[in-house]
Amino acid sequence: MHGKLQRKTGHLLNAEPLADFKVGVDNVIFSVDTDQNRLLVLLVMRHDAPYCGCWSLPGTLVRQGESLEDAAYRVLSEKIRVNNLYLEQLYTFGGPDRDPREEEDSYGVRYLSVSHFALVRFAEAELIADGVSGIAWYPLAQVPTLAFDHAEVLAYGYQRLKNKLEYSPIAFDVLPDIFTLGDLYQLYVTVLGEGFSDYSNFRARLLKLGFLEDTGNKTSRGAGRPASLYRFDADAFELLKDKPMVFI
Amino acid sequence: MHGKLQRKTGHLLNAEPLADFKVGVDNVIFSVDTDQNRLLVLLVMRHDAPYCGCWSLPGTLVRQGESLEDAAYRVLSEKIRVNNLYLEQLYTFGGPDRDPREEEDSYGVRYLSVSHFALVRFAEAELIADGVSGIAWYPLAQVPTLAFDHAEVLAYGYQRLKNKLEYSPIAFDVLPDIFTLGDLYQLYVTVLGEGFSDYSNFRARLLKLGFLEDTGNKTSRGAGRPASLYRFDADAFELLKDKPMVFI
Repeated sequence: MHGKLQRKTGHLLNAEPLADFKVGVDNVIFSVDTDQNRLLVLLVMRHDAPYCGCWSLPGTLVRQGESLEDAAYRVLSEKIRVNNLYLEQLYTFGGPDRDPREEEDSYGVRYLSVSHFALVRFAEAELIADGVSGIAWYPLAQVPTLAFDHAEVLAYGYQRLKNKLEYSPIAFDVLPDIFTLGDLYQLYVTVLGEGFSDYSNFRARLLKLGFLEDTGNKTSRGAGRPASLYRFDADAFELLKDKPMVFI
Repeated sequence: MHGKLQRKTGHLLNAEPLADFKVGVDNVIFSVDTDQNRLLVLLVMRHDAPYCGCWSLPGTLVRQGESLEDAAYRVLSEKIRVNNLYLEQLYTFGGPDRDPREEEDSYGVRYLSVSHFALVRFAEAELIADGVSGIAWYPLAQVPTLAFDHAEVLAYGYQRLKNKLEYSPIAFDVLPDIFTLGDLYQLYVTVLGEGFSDYSNFRARLLKLGFLEDTGNKTSRGAGRPASLYRFDADAFELLKDKPMVFI
């Protein structure tokens, strides 16, 4: 909800010339290490000014003839080998003064960033070191100071990830094909934190939605009684997906 | 879900020079005429090339020193007088060839559009005719052929509006302060179409969520028995808003 429009400011700015832009894409690439229950984000170390030596989200500038989405896939393919991934546009950050390459006095070329959100399966993702820049999966809690406004972009991406867990089957892009309800619950705890829901409510709600298929097999990991193994039933979900629902 | 990365395409494009951009904002501004139960979108007639004489979403190009959000508010304030409105960023459209001002052979300056979504209260919104360009609230079903890729932008905005009705209190930005549950249901029918939910389920679900306050007053409009008048309790909603929920 916003207040009154600032008409005066608007009309004064009408007199200003148009801004020229370079357009970047920056990717918030999440993964979940399901063995160690850690939420990870992919960072690269910059080796050019500005912010040389600083960690940042992997990004690139859009080239002639290239779409925003192609640019996002290009930077991903340069940093990581992965067969399947989920990628979507996140938010566009384009205010003045967000990049030191734009001098405050000169109002030179501005740098706009169309951020993208991706989630990859940890066990299948192979990082590509190009011999120059550092690259690492950082646990979200240990992310260092980031270049540019990337801390803000990352926070936005993390919020999107949490929201998507509530209403989309994104968790099944991260889990193995066959999993227990305990595995699924642990993934939600890893991303959303303890106390988002108790296990029995979570279990009852997910089973009621009808897109988890009991394989009939059981696991005997751990000390407890054998747990049923499930798989995500994409066809069953397809029938439901236009229906508003929450998973937790 | 996407397939294998197109590494080859990516690497070829690495050799291309960076694209230069102008950045526009285009606003999908919805309103609901609650008297006539019509969903409306604000269109303006272009009086410059390209698409001269064609209807389009109201937009502008971002000026030096101006943020994306300020540009979105500026174009709004030039077209409409309104005290309260809801505005948020929608999606960024930036592929090559989306604007005829970018020649296909030359790969000149590209035009990227950061679209925004707004919802205004129909009775309070006053259109501003500037003496040159046409301006009109179009019922969604009667929208003519639009300039650029604005049909796609509008479709994206309409999907966002429908989604927001499912989980956010955006309806109360549009309704009068005091309303019946029938008024609220009719608003949902106007936007989502008949059959999204039957009235008694809708009524039960909304009341259970606990953010509708019974004013104690009743209306006697129409032939039926007097209907209770409600108001949206923003404080009650504030306590719930981080909890995943669906309204319908």
